[in-house]
Amino acid sequence: MKPSVVKGTRDFGPEQMSKRLFIFDTIRQTFRRFGFQPLETPSLENLSTLTGKYGDEGDQLLFKILNSGDFAGGLTEADLAEGSKKLTPRIAEKGLRYDLTVPFARYVVMNRHALPMPFKRYQMQPVWRADRPQKGRYREFYQCDADVVGTDSLLCEAEIVLMVHEVMRNLGIENFTLKINNRKILAGIAEAIGRAGDEGALAVAIDKLDKIGPEKVADELRERGFSDENLAALQPLFTINGAPNEVLASLKTWLSGSETAQKGIAELEETLTLVEQLGLEKPQLELDVTLARGLSYYTGAIFEVKADGVSIGSISGGGRYDNLTGAFGMPGLSGVGISFGVDRIYDVMDELNLFPASAGQGTQVLLACFDADGRAVALPLLSQLRAAGVPAELYPDLTKVKKQLDYANARQIPYVVLIGSDEVQSGQLSVKNMVTGEQQKQTADEVVAMLTNL
Amino acid sequence: MKPSVVKGTRDFGPEQMSKRLFIFDTIRQTFRRFGFQPLETPSLENLSTLTGKYGDEGDQLLFKILNSGDFAGGLTEADLAEGSKKLTPRIAEKGLRYDLTVPFARYVVMNRHALPMPFKRYQMQPVWRADRPQKGRYREFYQCDADVVGTDSLLCEAEIVLMVHEVMRNLGIENFTLKINNRKILAGIAEAIGRAGDEGALAVAIDKLDKIGPEKVADELRERGFSDENLAALQPLFTINGAPNEVLASLKTWLSGSETAQKGIAELEETLTLVEQLGLEKPQLELDVTLARGLSYYTGAIFEVKADGVSIGSISGGGRYDNLTGAFGMPGLSGVGISFGVDRIYDVMDELNLFPASAGQGTQVLLACFDADGRAVALPLLSQLRAAGVPAELYPDLTKVKKQLDYANARQIPYVVLIGSDEVQSGQLSVKNMVTGEQQKQTADEVVAMLTNL
Repeated sequence: MKPSVVKGTRDFGPEQMSKRLFIFDTIRQTFRRFGFQPLETPSLENLSTLTGKYGDEGDQLLFKILNSGDFAGGLTEADLAEGSKKLTPRIAEKGLRYDLTVPFARYVVMNRHALPMPFKRYQMQPVWRADRPQKGRYREFYQCDADVVGTDSLLCEAEIVLMVHEVMRNLGIENFTLKINNRKILAGIAEAIGRAGDEGALAVAIDKLDKIGPEKVADELRERGFSDENLAALQPLFTINGAPNEVLASLKTWLSGSETAQKGIAELEETLTLVEQLGLEKPQLELDVTLARGLSYYTGAIFEVKADGVSIGSISGGGRYDNLTGAFGMPGLSGVGISFGVDRIYDVMDELNLFPASAGQGTQVLLACFDADGRAVALPLLSQLRAAGVPAELYPDLTKVKKQLDYANARQIPYVVLIGSDEVQSGQLSVKNMVTGEQQKQTADEVVAMLTNL
Repeated sequence: MKPSVVKGTRDFGPEQMSKRLFIFDTIRQTFRRFGFQPLETPSLENLSTLTGKYGDEGDQLLFKILNSGDFAGGLTEADLAEGSKKLTPRIAEKGLRYDLTVPFARYVVMNRHALPMPFKRYQMQPVWRADRPQKGRYREFYQCDADVVGTDSLLCEAEIVLMVHEVMRNLGIENFTLKINNRKILAGIAEAIGRAGDEGALAVAIDKLDKIGPEKVADELRERGFSDENLAALQPLFTINGAPNEVLASLKTWLSGSETAQKGIAELEETLTLVEQLGLEKPQLELDVTLARGLSYYTGAIFEVKADGVSIGSISGGGRYDNLTGAFGMPGLSGVGISFGVDRIYDVMDELNLFPASAGQGTQVLLACFDADGRAVALPLLSQLRAAGVPAELYPDLTKVKKQLDYANARQIPYVVLIGSDEVQSGQLSVKNMVTGEQQKQTADEVVAMLTNL
């Protein structure tokens, strides 16, 4: 039997993992400095928790777990005739987490009497979607979310803007753009063009402006029942640009008739003021009124981050929502969150060669010996190195020098200490730098000192 | 709808998570120093990879994923009549990882031409078992495994002995016992009592010696077809004890007729010599010839770790195997590994109060202000603190001092900086130590310096 991985899933070998751990650690440290606390929820959730939260398409994409034991026991031919969809709830009660937001909402509701509010949590765990696998789309992938719930203070939005900059800086992604928008402005635009309440349909179309251009957006809006009059009124949208305060000034004029839009504009202004007060140098911020992220539950700010110079989609996104826990019987809880996509961040950093050398750093030194006498020297040295915090290995077999050096090369171990009979007698060990090929004699203590101070 | 978690699974809130992260980080750092490299495999595996690897009971305990789409499309009443067991492979092709060993074996086989051998990997991921939930037994739990494959050098066994000591020391679990045995000794005992080849049945029974005592072990062996003669020959087993070298001396005599046993004894002797050469101070090692860990695939060393003074089962276990990848068509690959159980380690450390204060450390300081002027002081200070690496928060709402202090208390934030109108005017901020209740005046720079040097 030739083994394989499930389509749409991946193994992460040592090199990839070391780089992924660099990303996870960097994000985690930044979240922590901003006061977010760690949370983990189970991979398995009751289907009653998951179903109906992600729309019909989402329900289809849930991985469902077959009930244990005699799941088919009570089934009849009539049940079978009902088809797969009706049969599912009879034989599957549990499913795999589809995102981190719904489990977070469930956690907040179940712990609402014990949680200090506002509650700031981060969560870094895999999620699963029974999507058709394709390039860059996986069935199992990690999300890294940070959310604050229990306050509608715009300070939270400002902190997210700062945190995004901080994460990007710490990862080494210097060239990126953080787009920001506000759902209330989208709602105001819908009002202004005579389609009050239709900002959902409007957003889905104009969200694609970057990709398909204004003409195709217009086509799509026509298909969705927008009239030529509506479209004519929408024209200012396509000419608005500039720095965030310029965009806000244009919007103020254009949308002067919409109270909702003015509220959204005021929220964005306050957010930008707070960002400035927080002292962010060179904000890489763009106010994009077409940004909608397709997601219907955002009620205020909307965020999206893309790396410049690579054709990889957004690496981070989020926004404010007013009803995180409504589906679980706890209405009116406002919150705002941001999610980082580790897989895409990895792709960006890989393509732009941004991983620091330390990210892949594993074993620093291999001790190579050829007989029991060499080992007697190597074994205490090995322990000394590790005690000094130096990742170190002793080649486990007493074999030819070539084989041991080949192993060090394959593992990209930068130093090899050769301990043959000369070295045993003199106490001067041969230290080979595997990058330069240089070799020098050092005592065991000198080896430890040299590698500790690297 | 009142939400709940799936039975046998758990949420890990901020306090538990902080402590769990301490355990994960400690184990990860130790693995890394010993030259193990990180690996992650998908949670989903093909059922063809998982089935038949864990015995019949294991197959029952696999969580199976319902196929996507119209899974029931081709099913007939005749299929239904076959029952759940026969139906399963028709409607489920994928399952959840049951342990980290089988996915590791699959990975090694799929990457055998690219992997430098010996291959040392560690893996820290959740696994799932459709077990009946009960105290201390979960359906979703983490395993932390480190394995070396591709060498039969006993150095690997010795390094595992050292690594276990190192992990325990770094976690702060000072009182523990590492039991060690060798399958070949068990096989030799079976030979010596006239039941050559029956060490499996023998092991299952004598493994329980600690729990049920020698008489019940004898009863169980009788049930398994062992004769009174066999049992009489087994008597020396129950009197062997002492330091590892004493036990080895007794075994040498008792099992002098078994070549296999002598080989096992020699392996243990060499392992202990290597441990000594590695310079381990005060090994907490016990040679227990009844140790079998019920697992049939161990062929050499067997390890088990228990914390002293708590009635919690083993917190770590492992051993050598000779045929990790045989089921995937790659026979003869020898390896040795150790697995740490994070959940039980957590329970031990919690019960013995071993978590260091730093393990739960989140936000260090809360800035509290009451109007826009206070915020203008607080916001740049917030950024300064974070830039200095101090986890810091600003209470997001301009609300009463009591509410903000209550929040700091609930979150166990040790310092609060109060910024009212006096503080804004004087630049002297009020810094409250939430543990002692003391309050003092400091400038913003002094606050940063004080908290950075904590």
